[in-house]
Amino acid sequence: MLERFKPKPEDSERVSLDSLYEVVTAIFEKMGVPNSDAREAADVLTMTDLRGVETHGVSNMLRAYVEQYTDGLVNPNPNWKIERETPGTAVINADRGLGIILGRRAMDIAIQKAKTVGVGIVTMNNGAHVGAVGHFSMLAAKQDMVGMCATSAGTGVLPTFASEARFGTNPISIAAPARNEAPLLFDAATSQIAGNKFSLAKRVGSDLLPGWIADDTGTPILEETPVPEGSWYGSLLPLGGTRELGSHKGYGFMLMVEVLGAFLSGSVPGMFDAVKMESGYKHYFAAYDIKAFTDVDEFKDKMDKMLKMLRETKPASGHERVLYPGLTESEDEKDRRENGIPLHKEVLQWFDSMVGELGVPALEIM
Amino acid sequence: MLERFKPKPEDSERVSLDSLYEVVTAIFEKMGVPNSDAREAADVLTMTDLRGVETHGVSNMLRAYVEQYTDGLVNPNPNWKIERETPGTAVINADRGLGIILGRRAMDIAIQKAKTVGVGIVTMNNGAHVGAVGHFSMLAAKQDMVGMCATSAGTGVLPTFASEARFGTNPISIAAPARNEAPLLFDAATSQIAGNKFSLAKRVGSDLLPGWIADDTGTPILEETPVPEGSWYGSLLPLGGTRELGSHKGYGFMLMVEVLGAFLSGSVPGMFDAVKMESGYKHYFAAYDIKAFTDVDEFKDKMDKMLKMLRETKPASGHERVLYPGLTESEDEKDRRENGIPLHKEVLQWFDSMVGELGVPALEIM
Repeated sequence: MLERFKPKPEDSERVSLDSLYEVVTAIFEKMGVPNSDAREAADVLTMTDLRGVETHGVSNMLRAYVEQYTDGLVNPNPNWKIERETPGTAVINADRGLGIILGRRAMDIAIQKAKTVGVGIVTMNNGAHVGAVGHFSMLAAKQDMVGMCATSAGTGVLPTFASEARFGTNPISIAAPARNEAPLLFDAATSQIAGNKFSLAKRVGSDLLPGWIADDTGTPILEETPVPEGSWYGSLLPLGGTRELGSHKGYGFMLMVEVLGAFLSGSVPGMFDAVKMESGYKHYFAAYDIKAFTDVDEFKDKMDKMLKMLRETKPASGHERVLYPGLTESEDEKDRRENGIPLHKEVLQWFDSMVGELGVPALEIM
Repeated sequence: MLERFKPKPEDSERVSLDSLYEVVTAIFEKMGVPNSDAREAADVLTMTDLRGVETHGVSNMLRAYVEQYTDGLVNPNPNWKIERETPGTAVINADRGLGIILGRRAMDIAIQKAKTVGVGIVTMNNGAHVGAVGHFSMLAAKQDMVGMCATSAGTGVLPTFASEARFGTNPISIAAPARNEAPLLFDAATSQIAGNKFSLAKRVGSDLLPGWIADDTGTPILEETPVPEGSWYGSLLPLGGTRELGSHKGYGFMLMVEVLGAFLSGSVPGMFDAVKMESGYKHYFAAYDIKAFTDVDEFKDKMDKMLKMLRETKPASGHERVLYPGLTESEDEKDRRENGIPLHKEVLQWFDSMVGELGVPALEIM
């Protein structure tokens, strides 16, 4: 994550993983979510914060989920079911259950199918927010598989050359296991930035960079610009930003996610029901059983060799080192397990208010 | 394709599809390729030119293939075989057969597997160039499936923050059928531009745009710059160009293709054998049987509705219309089937030289 999105250390305090997990579980239970599901939700959210993905951890998402449960937009007791199935595929109707809870179920089914026929694809319609898609790809990687996950929702992002929004930020992820190196974990919105980066930028007081959003006429703004007042919806550009820098490719990747998530779950893309999002969120989960393709030990050894090569690649002038997707996530996890998870003071205030409002335990500051 | 890459009309002449197909077939036969394979190769290359994808059609690629056959780098009679197989997956050793010829075999196997278990994944190691990956995705789309294809080769592209190249241009594609609209066909290098764009730019005398390549220190060049002398290898930036504009996402997509193509075919990424490319090209083919996921007619109707919505989206200021991936390809195909395929005079000269050198028929100018 760019430095501009990170809270200043003096604006944050660190809380322990155990305390955060306990409080988040309690909040989900207060929303009517059964204990085992509440613990699953807390696991996903705290794991996301451990990995340093603040956009999708407790600070940005938990409040949204509480609002959505309170407003009846998300179902705390979904009667999810498989609508269509073959040996390698399944389509699930999520009954508006939260994706961060049902995601593990979907990926588990994909993994089981991959064990049988080499690959498993599970799509989910009528869902709610799935959190950081990379989390679910990692579930497969932990079982010696290559995992992928993507999600389609909403209509905040402009196609190339357009002045009307047609897509969600449509993130896609892939994870693959290594032996000694931190596993490969790539998770990115196919728009210039994730939607949650707007609230993060606002919270830490950063402007947006050139080429991230467009003005009302659909023209990319090519200078630093404040976070738009009200909603960012309709202003975000696809990955690449301008046509010259490849926004038509970002646009194509957004469409890829619509096809895999929305169309292959038998649902519709977000642009069909932009106002009310009747179709909900649509998700895609894939598991490739490595041993169906090659020797697992060789795969991991080669993955280690590649990731080490990338880490040790000579940096560009002015840069300290070359990263790979998953490396800082792993470093952050090590640090945060030991030293606690930093939360912005404004997030801590919200937790404080929940103590009174919901009667959940207070967070323990480290 | 950006206007800057298109040959000026006065520099081109149009040849008929039939004549081009006949001459290309004859050239492949002269390389020792059996007639049916030569016709397959001619079909792929001329189809690519019909779609307006000059980078990967006869003008750029045929000469390279002739050189590679002549130098013994590509096998005109490959003894390709399946090395590992499950009901949903297969790994093929291509025995250095050209990907544009073996691609259809691989996708056919993926399609057969998808008919049985809902999804089919075929990877190919020890291969040669596969041409435009979108062509193979389209083979699946024509059978009421969602098709994907990607290819990993070489080491010309820099990771974010790096000054040494580690990746090929690693293109990825997806195609999906519609009913009346032109099908969705997305095919893009995960680098800023495809490698072939360098020769195209040189041929038509265009400079490269800001953010496409880096200087020797790995620093992105943020102004227009001439095509590098000699090889472009080692200078190309990932999709996004700079970290601020998302090059870490382009980098992640390049890694995605390495995992799906190189690792899941039991091979190694191009960076392991950068100098001699001993491992060859590695390809990935996927077919999703739409009826395993949803009703095929509904899928196509919804696809039509989405593609029409995209076409009819209000354009940004200064732009005539909003495109979608596959739209201009379909328009070009209609035009070129009727009016012939434009070839740059320099390409026509090469064809002329082949008449004498190989004894193949001359191209018929329209």
